[in-house]
Amino acid sequence: MTAIDEGLLGPVGAGRDDLVADRRFLDALVEAEVALAAAYADIGVASPTLSRAVADALADASAGFDVAEIAAAAVAGGNPVIPMVARLKAAVPADARFWVHRGATSQDIWDTAIMIVARRALQQVRSSLEDAAQSLRDLAAAHRDDLAVARTLTQHAVPTTIGLRAAVWQRSLRRAAQHLEALELPAQLGGAGGTLASFVEITGSPDAAARLVAAFADRAGLAVPAAAWHVTRWPITELGDALVQSVDAAGKLATDVATLSRTEIGELAEGTGGGSSAMPQKQNPAEAVLIRSAALRAPQLGATLHLAAALAADERPDGAWHAEWPTLRELLRLALGASGHASTMVAHLRVHADAAARNLALTNGLVVSERLSLVLAPLIGKERVARLVADAAAGGDLAALVKALPEASDLDVDALLDPADYTGLAGRLVDDVTHTHQEEA
Amino acid sequence: MTAIDEGLLGPVGAGRDDLVADRRFLDALVEAEVALAAAYADIGVASPTLSRAVADALADASAGFDVAEIAAAAVAGGNPVIPMVARLKAAVPADARFWVHRGATSQDIWDTAIMIVARRALQQVRSSLEDAAQSLRDLAAAHRDDLAVARTLTQHAVPTTIGLRAAVWQRSLRRAAQHLEALELPAQLGGAGGTLASFVEITGSPDAAARLVAAFADRAGLAVPAAAWHVTRWPITELGDALVQSVDAAGKLATDVATLSRTEIGELAEGTGGGSSAMPQKQNPAEAVLIRSAALRAPQLGATLHLAAALAADERPDGAWHAEWPTLRELLRLALGASGHASTMVAHLRVHADAAARNLALTNGLVVSERLSLVLAPLIGKERVARLVADAAAGGDLAALVKALPEASDLDVDALLDPADYTGLAGRLVDDVTHTHQEEA
Amino acid sequence: MTAIDEGLLGPVGAGRDDLVADRRFLDALVEAEVALAAAYADIGVASPTLSRAVADALADASAGFDVAEIAAAAVAGGNPVIPMVARLKAAVPADARFWVHRGATSQDIWDTAIMIVARRALQQVRSSLEDAAQSLRDLAAAHRDDLAVARTLTQHAVPTTIGLRAAVWQRSLRRAAQHLEALELPAQLGGAGGTLASFVEITGSPDAAARLVAAFADRAGLAVPAAAWHVTRWPITELGDALVQSVDAAGKLATDVATLSRTEIGELAEGTGGGSSAMPQKQNPAEAVLIRSAALRAPQLGATLHLAAALAADERPDGAWHAEWPTLRELLRLALGASGHASTMVAHLRVHADAAARNLALTNGLVVSERLSLVLAPLIGKERVARLVADAAAGGDLAALVKALPEASDLDVDALLDPADYTGLAGRLVDDVTHTHQEEA
Amino acid sequence: MTAIDEGLLGPVGAGRDDLVADRRFLDALVEAEVALAAAYADIGVASPTLSRAVADALADASAGFDVAEIAAAAVAGGNPVIPMVARLKAAVPADARFWVHRGATSQDIWDTAIMIVARRALQQVRSSLEDAAQSLRDLAAAHRDDLAVARTLTQHAVPTTIGLRAAVWQRSLRRAAQHLEALELPAQLGGAGGTLASFVEITGSPDAAARLVAAFADRAGLAVPAAAWHVTRWPITELGDALVQSVDAAGKLATDVATLSRTEIGELAEGTGGGSSAMPQKQNPAEAVLIRSAALRAPQLGATLHLAAALAADERPDGAWHAEWPTLRELLRLALGASGHASTMVAHLRVHADAAARNLALTNGLVVSERLSLVLAPLIGKERVARLVADAAAGGDLAALVKALPEASDLDVDALLDPADYTGLAGRLVDDVTHTHQEEA
Repeated sequence: MTAIDEGLLGPVGAGRDDLVADRRFLDALVEAEVALAAAYADIGVASPTLSRAVADALADASAGFDVAEIAAAAVAGGNPVIPMVARLKAAVPADARFWVHRGATSQDIWDTAIMIVARRALQQVRSSLEDAAQSLRDLAAAHRDDLAVARTLTQHAVPTTIGLRAAVWQRSLRRAAQHLEALELPAQLGGAGGTLASFVEITGSPDAAARLVAAFADRAGLAVPAAAWHVTRWPITELGDALVQSVDAAGKLATDVATLSRTEIGELAEGTGGGSSAMPQKQNPAEAVLIRSAALRAPQLGATLHLAAALAADERPDGAWHAEWPTLRELLRLALGASGHASTMVAHLRVHADAAARNLALTNGLVVSERLSLVLAPLIGKERVARLVADAAAGGDLAALVKALPEASDLDVDALLDPADYTGLAGRLVDDVTHTHQEEA
Repeated sequence: MTAIDEGLLGPVGAGRDDLVADRRFLDALVEAEVALAAAYADIGVASPTLSRAVADALADASAGFDVAEIAAAAVAGGNPVIPMVARLKAAVPADARFWVHRGATSQDIWDTAIMIVARRALQQVRSSLEDAAQSLRDLAAAHRDDLAVARTLTQHAVPTTIGLRAAVWQRSLRRAAQHLEALELPAQLGGAGGTLASFVEITGSPDAAARLVAAFADRAGLAVPAAAWHVTRWPITELGDALVQSVDAAGKLATDVATLSRTEIGELAEGTGGGSSAMPQKQNPAEAVLIRSAALRAPQLGATLHLAAALAADERPDGAWHAEWPTLRELLRLALGASGHASTMVAHLRVHADAAARNLALTNGLVVSERLSLVLAPLIGKERVARLVADAAAGGDLAALVKALPEASDLDVDALLDPADYTGLAGRLVDDVTHTHQEEA
Repeated sequence: MTAIDEGLLGPVGAGRDDLVADRRFLDALVEAEVALAAAYADIGVASPTLSRAVADALADASAGFDVAEIAAAAVAGGNPVIPMVARLKAAVPADARFWVHRGATSQDIWDTAIMIVARRALQQVRSSLEDAAQSLRDLAAAHRDDLAVARTLTQHAVPTTIGLRAAVWQRSLRRAAQHLEALELPAQLGGAGGTLASFVEITGSPDAAARLVAAFADRAGLAVPAAAWHVTRWPITELGDALVQSVDAAGKLATDVATLSRTEIGELAEGTGGGSSAMPQKQNPAEAVLIRSAALRAPQLGATLHLAAALAADERPDGAWHAEWPTLRELLRLALGASGHASTMVAHLRVHADAAARNLALTNGLVVSERLSLVLAPLIGKERVARLVADAAAGGDLAALVKALPEASDLDVDALLDPADYTGLAGRLVDDVTHTHQEEA
Repeated sequence: MTAIDEGLLGPVGAGRDDLVADRRFLDALVEAEVALAAAYADIGVASPTLSRAVADALADASAGFDVAEIAAAAVAGGNPVIPMVARLKAAVPADARFWVHRGATSQDIWDTAIMIVARRALQQVRSSLEDAAQSLRDLAAAHRDDLAVARTLTQHAVPTTIGLRAAVWQRSLRRAAQHLEALELPAQLGGAGGTLASFVEITGSPDAAARLVAAFADRAGLAVPAAAWHVTRWPITELGDALVQSVDAAGKLATDVATLSRTEIGELAEGTGGGSSAMPQKQNPAEAVLIRSAALRAPQLGATLHLAAALAADERPDGAWHAEWPTLRELLRLALGASGHASTMVAHLRVHADAAARNLALTNGLVVSERLSLVLAPLIGKERVARLVADAAAGGDLAALVKALPEASDLDVDALLDPADYTGLAGRLVDDVTHTHQEEA
C-alpha cells in the first residue's frame, strides 16, 4: 500500500502537520493502551510491575509498527484498534498480556487516541495563533495612526487606520485561541455499550470502575469524562467548531492580505511572496492564498462532524463514527497550516503606508463625505449637501466648494476635510488590544 | 410579491418558528433604531423628550409596515435597513426625526436586529431543550433498571438499560442548552467603517461615543461589544455552532426513537404517531422523522456561516454578510422546530419495556458473551470459551454448556448469565443525571 | 401562523422567486391530483366526465386554500399532501370524489408537484442565463480587442482582453444553461412501496398500471419514469447539482465584477449601482454582491440533497425525504435570483476600457515579461533576462534596456513590448462564442 | 516529512485508492509534461528526437522523485509543478531541456495531471459499480418473487419483493455509472492568462497553437478543450457531482443493508461480516458501515468544489484553485472505496428470504390493509373498513373478519389477503433490469 497523502496536494498543511500524521495516531493508540494498563495499577487492581511491563514493551514495539500494513489490516473490522490489539498483545510478555486492552472496546482506545492527538495539535495551533496575534499587536502599535481607507462592498467608504485594521484581525485570532483553550478534551472509557460493565466486572465494583476512568484520563493527559460519550459526540463537534473558527480568523486576515496586495492597491506585500522568474512583476501573496484554500474547505469538514454527531445511532453508529476520523484529522491539518502560515505571514508582512495614503486620496476628498453630511446638513439642509458632494464627485474642488458656503464660515474646513480627523475610536481600539495585552503579560 | 415561505415545505418548524418570521426581524430593526435614539438620550446627547417621541412614533408605525413591500424595496441597496430608514423617518415628528438612525450604518442596525431576534428564539430553544431533558430524566428514573440491549454497528452487543439510554440522550440536550446559555450576543455599533467616527462626531468625544455603545447595547438587551464586529463574525458563527449542536442532540435522540420504533423492534412508540387510515398497522414516528429532517440540514447551514466569516473581506464584505441572514434564520428555525418536537416527542413517548426485554433475549443468551469471556477465559482459556460460545450461537443451551464445565463448578452460572447482573454503572449514571438535577432544583 | 419568509432576508431572490412560493407548490400539488384523475380517464379506467369534474372542481377550489392553515395541518402527518387530500375530496362532487388521489401515496403527489414547480422555475433560470450570455457575447464583440491585464493570485500576469474575459464568463453561463436543459424531470407514481400494487389493483392489470404512469407523466408535463424513484433520488440530486452549477457560473462572473469595480481598479461599474446619499463616492456593485451571497450558500444546499439521497432508507426514509423540500426550494430561489441578477447586471454593465488600459500599464511594461523571456532567453540566456527584467522592475526603462542589447538588434522591440501583440488566441476565442452563436441563431 | 495519510483513518478507501496516491499525481504531472513536448513534435514545431528524449529522460527520472521532498518544496510557490519543473529540466539532456514545460503555466500541467489521475480512477469506480450492478441483477433474478415488506418511515407498509429491492439498488448504481461515463475530461492548456499567448509565440501562429492544444489533449488521453478552463471550473464540479452521485448510490444500498442486517430484522447478512471474538452473536455489516462513512462525507466535499468554482476570481484565483486538489482527491478516494466495497459486499450478500417472510407476517396480515381498503371500501364503506382493520390490529383474525362480511361473499378472501398477490409491478420491474441487460450484453 502506497502512502496516499504526503502533503503534495495540500501545501497549506505541508511541513506543519506532522503532529496529525497516521503515525501519531498509532502512537497515541499505544499511549491509550499503556494508560489503561497503568490505570489498573493506579487503582490497585493490576500489579505495578505488570503495568510497567506493558508500558516498556509497547514503548519498544511501537516504533516498529508498519502504518500501512495496519491500515490494510484495519479494513476488515473497520477500525485500526482491532489489528493493533493483536500486535500489542504479541509484543508484551505473556504474564502482562492480560492487562492489554483489558475490558476495553475499540472505541474507548480510538476516541482517547484521537483526543491525545488533538490535544497536542491544539497546542501548536494556539501557539501559532498567539504568535500571529502578537505580530499584529506590534503592527497595530507601529501603524496606530497611519491612515487608510475603510472599504465596504468593495468601495471606499470612510477613513480608518492601518493600526485598527491590524487590531481587528488580532481580535479574531485571539478569540479563536481562547476558544481553543476553553475546550474540554475528555478520555473515553465506556466498554462495549457505554455501561462500563466490563470494568465493573474486572475491578469488582462500580466505585473501582469509576476510579479507573479517572486514573485512565489522568494517565492519558485528558479530562475525566462525566460519562462515556460514545454516542454523545459534543467533544468532537465542539473541537471541530473551534478549529473551524481558527481557520475562519486566519481566513479573514488572509482575504484582506490578498486584496490589499493587489497590484492596483499595494498597501501590503508578503515578505516571502512567491515570485515568478518569468513574471517578476508578480509578488504573489502565496501564504494568504494557501490560508484561503484552507478557509474554503474547513467549514464543510466541520459540517460533517455535526452530521456524524446527529446520526450517532444506537450505542455505536453504523458509519457516523467512522466518518469522523479523517474529517477531524483534515480539520486539524487545516488549522495547523492556516494558523502556522498566518503566524509567518504577518511576521513578515510589509506595510506600505504610503500606498494606503495614496489610495485614501483617490476619491477627491470625498472619503469624508459622511462627516460633511453630518456637519453641513443641519446648516444647509440635506439637498444642498447632496448637490455639493455631487459637484465634488464630478471633479469640483471640495474644499473650495465648502469654503464658499456662507453658512460654513465658522467651520474649520481644512480640519473638517482632513481624514486624519475622522477616524473615531480607531486609536483607542488599537490601544485596547496593545495595552490590554501588556497588562496581561 | 407572494409570501415565499409559510411553512408548507418545512413541517419541522411550522407552528414553532413565529419568533423568526420576517415580521419579527422588521420589529427588531425598529427596536434597534428606538434603542439608538434612547441611547443618545441616556448619555445626555439627545433630549429625552425627542427620544421618547421617536419610540412612540415608531411603536405606532411599525405594525403598519408591509413586509413584502419593504423586502421588494430592499433589493436595490441590498439590505432592508435602507428602505426602512426612510419610512421610519417619515413616521417620526419632524423635530425628532434628526435622531432616527443618527450616525448609524445599515449594518449596525441589522446586526443588532438579528441579535435581538436570536436572543428571543434562543430562549425558546433552551426552554424546549430543558423540557425535553426533564422528561428524559423522568423517563430515566422510571425505567432505571429496565433492561435493554446495547447495539453497536446495528448488532446486539451487551446489556444496557432503558434508563441509561434516556440519561445519555439527556446529557446531549443539557450540554446543548448550556452551550446556548453561555453565548455572548453583542449589539453592533461601529459606523460605516467600524471606527465609530460618526458617533464621535455626533457625541463630541471618544468617551461619549463609547458610552453610547454601552447604552445602546443595554437598551437593545444585548451584550456590550468590546469593538465593532462588522468583519469579525464570531458572534454569528458561535451562535450558529451552538444552534447546530442543539439540532444534533435532538437528531441523535430522534434517530434512536425512529430505530427503536421499527415494526420489528418496537421498544418505543411516539404517543402521537401519525397514523394512516389505509394502513393502520403503521405507527409512524412522525416527530422523530421531522427532527431528523432538521438534523440533516443544519450542519451545512452552519458551514455557510463559517464561510461567510472567513470571507468577510474589507470593512464590509461583498456578499458574505448577506449570505448570513437567511442562513442564520433557517438555522434558528430548525433549532426551534427540532427542540420543540424533541420536547413534545419525549413527553409522549411510549416505552415498551417488554419488547426491550424480548429483544434482549433474541441472541440465545449470548448478549452476555463478553462477560462470559472475561470470567471463563482465565479458567478454561480463550479457545474453549470461543468454542462454547459458538456452540450456543448454533443453538445450544448456554447455561447447560457452562454448567457442564468442571472448571465452572464454583460459579453461580445463572447469575453470570443474567443480563441484569451485567449493566455496569448504568444505574449510577442514571442517578447522576436525576439526582444532580434534584439538587440543582 | 405568520408568513415566515417574504423575502426580507434574501434580497437576491426577492421579486424573482415567485414561481417557487409555497402557493405554487400547493397549486402544483393540485395539478398532480388533477393529472392523476385525468390519467385514469386517458387509459379508459375512469370516465372522462368524472375526471373532468375533478379538474373543474379543483380548479375552482384551489385558489381558496389557505397556505398557512394547510402548512399547520401538515405537521402531524409530516407532509402537506395528507391535509390537502381531505380538502380536495371535500371540494369535489361526491360521484367524482372516488378518483381523487386514487391509489396514490403522498410521495407520488408531492414529488410530482416538486418536479412541476422545478420545471417552471428552470425555464426562468435558463432564460435568464441565456439573456446574460447574450449580453456577454455583445460585450465580448464590442470589446474584442480592448486590452486588459490578466491577474493571477491577485497579481498582474500577462495581457488579455476585455472581450476574452466576457467570453469566458459567457462559456460558464452557457454550460450551465445547457446542463439545465439536459435534465430529466420525471413524474413519480409508485404507490405506498414503489410496487404500483394499488394501481394494478385499480386498473386491473400490470399493463394498464404502466400505461397509467405514462399518461400521468404526460398530463403533468413531465418525463415518464422508468420506475418509481421514491428512494433513488437522482432526479433530485441531478437537478440540485445543475442549479448549483448555474449559481457557480453567476458567482464567478459576480466575483470578477465586484473585484473589477473596486475603487482602485475601476474597470467595470454596475449601471444600477446602489449609491449611498451620505457617501456619493460609493458605487456599490450591488447586484454582484447579491449574486455572491447566493454563490456562498448554494453548494451547501446541494450537499444536503446528496445526503438525503444517500440516506434514503427503506422504501421511504425517516427524515431524508423531508429534508429535501425546503432545501431544493431554496436552491431554486438562489438560482432564480442569481441568474436573474446576472442577466440585469451584465445588461447594464459599464465598461471602462480606459481604466483597463491604465491598469495594464501599471507594472512599467513588465506585463510582457513572460514574452520577453521566451524571446530573449535563447539569445542572451535566462540569467541575463532575469537581470534585465529586475532592472526594469526597479524602475529602468524596459524598452531602452532591451534595445541596448546587441543580441536584440534584429528584434522589433516596440512590437515585442506591445501588450496588444501578446494576446494569443484572445480574439479567436471571442469570435468562437460570438460566431458560433450567430450560426446557431 | 512523514506520510500524513497511509489509510489508517480511512478504512473505506484503504487498499482501493492507490490510483489517487500523491505518487500517481506526480506521475501524471510528468506525463503531462511529456505530452506537451510530444505535442510540439506532433505539430512539427519540435523535433521528434528531442521530444522523445524528453519522454525517455522523464520516464527514467520520475521513479526517483521523492514525493515528500517535492511536497515540502511546493509550499513556497503554492503548487508542486514549480519545484518539479526544475527537477524535470535537470533530468533531461541539455539539448532537449528547452522543450520541458515550454510555454506552459503551472495550472496547465497540474489541471491536466488531475484529469489524467481522475480518468484512471473513474475507470475503476465505474468497473466496481458495474460489478455491483451485475451482482444485484443476479440477486434480483434469484429472488424475483421472494416476498418482503416495504417499510416507510420505519414502519411496515405494503408487500414488496426482495427482487424489486435489489432492482431498485441496481438502478441507482447504473445511473451513477452512466453519469461517470458521460463526463467530459478535458486537458488544460491556456498559458499564464488563458490566452495561449505563449503558445502562439512559440508555435508562430494562432492555428498552430490551436493544433498544439489538440495534440496535447490527445497525448494526455483527454478531451480537447474548447477553451482554457482555468477559471470556468465545470470540468471539476461536474466530475465532483458525478462522484458524489456514485457514493450516494452506494450509500443508499449500504443504508438498507445495515438496516436489514439488524439483529431483529435479519433479512440480510454480509458474507464477510467482521465478527467479534468476545461477542460472537455480532455479525457486523462492516462493509456497509464503511460505505456509509463515505456517504456522510462526500456531499460536503462536493460542495467545496462548487464553492471553489464560484470563487474562481480573476484569471487564476487566490485560494479557490488550491482548495480543489485535496478535496477532489478525497472524493475520488471515497468513490473508489464506496464503489469497491459495494461490489464486494453485494457479491457476498447472504439473503435470508425466510426472515423476510417472517417479518412480513408480523402485523397480523395487515400488510395488505391498503388493498383491503381499495377493495372493501366500495362494498362496505370506509368507516366499516377502518373498524374491521382496527379489530384485526387489536388481535382479531383478519381472514375470519373479512369472510364474515356478507358483502364479501363473492370475494376470494384468501387471495385478497395473500401478500404475494399484491406486489404490483414488482416482477416486471425486476425483469426490466435483468432482461434489458441481457439484451445489451
